[in-house]
Amino acid sequence: MDIDLPDVVAEVGEAFARYETALVGNDVATLNELFHDDPRTLRYGIGENLYGYDEIKAFRGARSPVGLMRTTARTIITAYGRDTAVASTLFYRDSAPRKVGRQMQTWVRSAEGWRIVAAHVSMIDETQASP
Amino acid sequence: MDIDLPDVVAEVGEAFARYETALVGNDVATLNELFHDDPRTLRYGIGENLYGYDEIKAFRGARSPVGLMRTTARTIITAYGRDTAVASTLFYRDSAPRKVGRQMQTWVRSAEGWRIVAAHVSMIDETQASP
Repeated sequence: MDIDLPDVVAEVGEAFARYETALVGNDVATLNELFHDDPRTLRYGIGENLYGYDEIKAFRGARSPVGLMRTTARTIITAYGRDTAVASTLFYRDSAPRKVGRQMQTWVRSAEGWRIVAAHVSMIDETQASP
Repeated sequence: MDIDLPDVVAEVGEAFARYETALVGNDVATLNELFHDDPRTLRYGIGENLYGYDEIKAFRGARSPVGLMRTTARTIITAYGRDTAVASTLFYRDSAPRKVGRQMQTWVRSAEGWRIVAAHVSMIDETQASP
């Protein structure tokens, strides 16, 4: 399997950037667009486990738009073949001092374009992460 | 893209079961075998962020074998095409009462067989996860 074909990495990088902009701006329509509309799509969030696109969409719609701004670090996008990629990043929020967030997403190329089929977001103490 | 082709789901299910058995038994050789031997392999753990196969392998070798037993729940394996799958499961440990673990892995078919290229493990309060 080819890893990190440049055109695939570029495509997913573009989708990932759209997602990040939508996230900090609470652009719910774009966030919804970028998750795969399927009952098998899964998202483990910082404080919730969401099974299927409908649960994810309901969560987005109900979420407070306050305090979503963040900075990211060590963002890594790795493409496996032409149709799959994993995007991973650390993130930091002013509202969560001394914590580091981890966000990992699996993207697949669907008929509509690149979509997230699985995501996992969590926060841990920064001291744990950098021993 | 075909989702959940039965033979692909079966193959990954078998690899996932091997991983779970190795994990609770601290069978480090099998755990190492099932992670893709590549600097781009990534693992966000409960308390550490590991970049590349070598860091993951070093972590396994140094880990205490005590208290790894766990029960799992809501295990979901979803295959995207013939070469990619996401395996997700909740887990519970006696040593972590009132907590629920979330483990999400992206598996790809390599020349050597199915391998984990990205994993994210975290624990949250059970009350958070089941509002």
